[in-house]
Order: sequence, then structure tokens, then C-alpha cells
Amino acid sequence: MKKQPIGVFDSGLGGLTILNALRRELPKEDLIYFGDTANVPYGSKSKEAVTRFSLAIARFLESQHVKLIIVACNTASAQALTELRKQISVPVMGVIEPGAEKAVSTTRNGRIAVLGTEGTIRSNAYPKAILKRAPKMRVTQQACALFVPLVEENWGKKPAAKLIAQTYLTPIQQSGADTVILGCTHYPILKPVISQILGKRVTLVDSADTLAEAARRFLLQSGQACSTGKGRVQVYASDDPTRFKRLAGYLLADKIGAVRLKKLDL
Amino acid sequence: MKKQPIGVFDSGLGGLTILNALRRELPKEDLIYFGDTANVPYGSKSKEAVTRFSLAIARFLESQHVKLIIVACNTASAQALTELRKQISVPVMGVIEPGAEKAVSTTRNGRIAVLGTEGTIRSNAYPKAILKRAPKMRVTQQACALFVPLVEENWGKKPAAKLIAQTYLTPIQQSGADTVILGCTHYPILKPVISQILGKRVTLVDSADTLAEAARRFLLQSGQACSTGKGRVQVYASDDPTRFKRLAGYLLADKIGAVRLKKLDL
Repeated sequence: MKKQPIGVFDSGLGGLTILNALRRELPKEDLIYFGDTANVPYGSKSKEAVTRFSLAIARFLESQHVKLIIVACNTASAQALTELRKQISVPVMGVIEPGAEKAVSTTRNGRIAVLGTEGTIRSNAYPKAILKRAPKMRVTQQACALFVPLVEENWGKKPAAKLIAQTYLTPIQQSGADTVILGCTHYPILKPVISQILGKRVTLVDSADTLAEAARRFLLQSGQACSTGKGRVQVYASDDPTRFKRLAGYLLADKIGAVRLKKLDL
Repeated sequence: MKKQPIGVFDSGLGGLTILNALRRELPKEDLIYFGDTANVPYGSKSKEAVTRFSLAIARFLESQHVKLIIVACNTASAQALTELRKQISVPVMGVIEPGAEKAVSTTRNGRIAVLGTEGTIRSNAYPKAILKRAPKMRVTQQACALFVPLVEENWGKKPAAKLIAQTYLTPIQQSGADTVILGCTHYPILKPVISQILGKRVTLVDSADTLAEAARRFLLQSGQACSTGKGRVQVYASDDPTRFKRLAGYLLADKIGAVRLKKLDL
């Protein structure tokens, strides 16, 4: 049991930021990462489509005998988690709950803002998770459709990034939130420009570290943690791995090695 | 034979600009539009994936007894046309050839620039089509990954659009091109900001009108034109039609009526 890998998936490359956190937190675990580059992005697609893609990936990860599946994608966590837990036999963890938990424990003025894709925002998954923990919180949401392409174009440091971020963040500034959830795995790449606009008094919450801690706790508590050796990482993509390898450089300092092509059965 | 519809497809909504031109040019023809909103965008995906999506759509259109298939998507025209023509029994027209033809007949100084998605630019389909017609032309290409999300966010008139366009267009200005192909169906929506940057001496070529003319000629020459009645338009999308309907408003002044969901067999 202890030698089984952990499966991690995302709509594309963004989840590599989560993979990174897992490698730091759980260096002895084998990890399998799946990036659904044939169907990316999930953020602008329907709940039905996102659920169909997510189930196909989870079934592939199950076939690889994973002991735990981590949904690194915020949109898939927001829209497909319930269905995944119904249909998949291994435990499934998403990024919404850890992010909400961290935001609730971070805010001092009870005002939290959420930045995410269209799908994540429309699902209201973050406000629901926050209000379940702390019913008096005030939550503001903002969909930021241009952030993902901005990161994938590697334009995070260009003037256009600042102008785009300013437009999305104006309602957040007006809300008075002191804690802002970066509710998409690509957004941590834009931390410098987001921080610059929001200022030092606003804390940016990125679920990667909280999720990795939660995964470690889960494995320890369930007696499934791997205690020896150095974990290996395998990476799969559902479309041509060439572009994946190139873009991975913007998201992950560590090298990821070979990326294998695995087409999904949809 | 004459009552058969024409099939038009695109990765998503962009092809509605082509549908519009076809309705103007061929008002008596029945048209079936298919937007592959479950798999959009094609621009960042591999040739293999784009071909697979395109074949599935073309087979659906064949099942609807179309007499002609028009590939409204530049990326699919650039990457999948050869394979579509091999595997599909009805004639297939793409947008690259008409666009290249129009650019060659427009330029006065022999310098043409092409703006497109990553996939279209990487395929070199436009330079090949241009140089086949006029081997002495000088062709400059520029991938503009942020243009599609910019249009879909309806930000064409915001300052960010100008800043983004300026970044992409600087090498085009340096090339001295007097003719610029808008090599993606979304880009005509950005004509105002692109024109403002490039100035009046640069002609913007959009393949919609040329393609519609070519389709009309083809139908007349092959005796397949419909000469009576008013054409009907049917619209299908491969993912939830709600978002499609909303975004269609940015791309198409005319109303498109009901949008039906049709999942693809991939």
C-alpha cells in the first residue's frame, strides 16, 4: 500500500504549482501528474463538460493504482468534486476547501475576495466553503479570464499585465478585503503584479501549501504515508507534450523530466 | 440536391463572423453552424488534436447531408484541411486560401504580415499559400495569443487592448508590411484598435468576404446553388449553449436564434 503513488491532475499546466508544493511537503511520495492539455481550459466550460473530463482523468489515475487523487484545478474542484467522490473509489481532495480554510484563518476584518476563472466564480464554491466555516464573512468574487492566457504568454512582467490586473482588482480594492484567494493555479505566477496593486496590507492566499499540508496529514492519519526513499514524478499530458514542456518552465523552477502523451477516453 | 445545407464550423464562436458573411452573400442557402465550444481553443493545441476534433465535426455535418463544408477556423484550416479532404466525401473549403489570395491582390509593396493563433502561425499555412501565388512576396508572421481572450472578455475598447495590440504589432510595423491578414476569425472584432496602431496606409485583410464569394462561385459553377426561398440558419455547440449565446452578441449583430447542444463523438 505504501508504495502507491498520489495522482494529481489539472486542466493543463497550472497544477504544476501544486505539484511543486507536494514535492516539497512529501518528498518521499511517488507522484503522477496529469495535465489535460487536449481539453484546456476548463474555466470557460460547462459543469457537465468539466465533470466528463475530470472523470476520464480520475479513471486513468485509478488504473495507475494511486492511493489518493488531488484535483489541483480550481474549476474542476469547484464543479466536479462531488461527482468524482461518487464515482471514484480512492479518496479525492480538491483545492477549494484548503484555500477557504486558509483565508478564514488569515483575514482580520472578515472581508475575503476570490479571484478565479469564470467557472469557479459561477459555481460559488469558495463563498460556500468560506460561509460554512464562518457565516459572518463578507465575500467578493471576480472572474479574471485574461490571467491564464497572460501567464501562458509569459507576459506577467509586461505593462499589459498591470493594466489588466488593475481592471480586475478595482472592485476588490473597493470591497475592502484584507485577504484575497488566488483561486486558480496559474495566478500565483502573477503574485508580484497583484501585490503591487493591492499593497502590503492585503494577504494573498494560494492553496498550494495548505493543500500539500492537508495531503500530508491525510496520509499520516490513514497510515498510507511513504516513509522511505525518494519519490519519483511521472508527468502525462493529453495533447502533444512539446508545448507542455516549454510552458512548464514558466510555472515550475524544478525540472519535470519526460512528459508522456496519454489520450483520454471521453 | 439544391435543398441541401452548407456546413460551417469553427473551434467556437469566432466563425460567426464567417457565418455572417455567408448569410449576406448567399441569402437563399440553408446554413448549419457548428461551434466546438467543448474543445475550444484550437490555437494552442497540436495538429493531431485539431485534426481529430475537425474530423468529428465534419462527420456530424456529413450526417446532416450538407453539400459543402466551410472550415471557418483558421487553425483548423491550417492544420486539418488535407486530412478532412481525404476522409470526407463532400467538398471542403478553408479560410487560408481566400485570405492569401486577397492579400496578394491587395499589397502594393510586396510585404504581407499575418496575425494568427500559435497553431496557425506554426503551420506556416499562410506563407506557403502566399508564396505559391507570388514567390517574391515578403511575409512576416506574429502569433497573438491574447487576442482571442480579449475579444471573448469583450475588452476590445479597453486601454489594455491597445497596449496588448501595440506589443504584438511592433514587429509588423518594423516589417514595413502594407497588408495585414487577420488570420483568426476573432480578430476582425479588434479592427478598430489594430487600424489605429497600424494607420490608414495598412490594409487589413479579413477572409470572411473573400471566402463567401468563393463559396458562391463554387456553388454556381457546380450547379448546386439554391435559387429560391430564404435560407435558414441552424446553430449547434458541443458544450452548454448558454455561454455561446451570450458571447455571440459580441461577434454577430444579427440574432442567431436557438443554439442546440450536440456532443461530439471523439
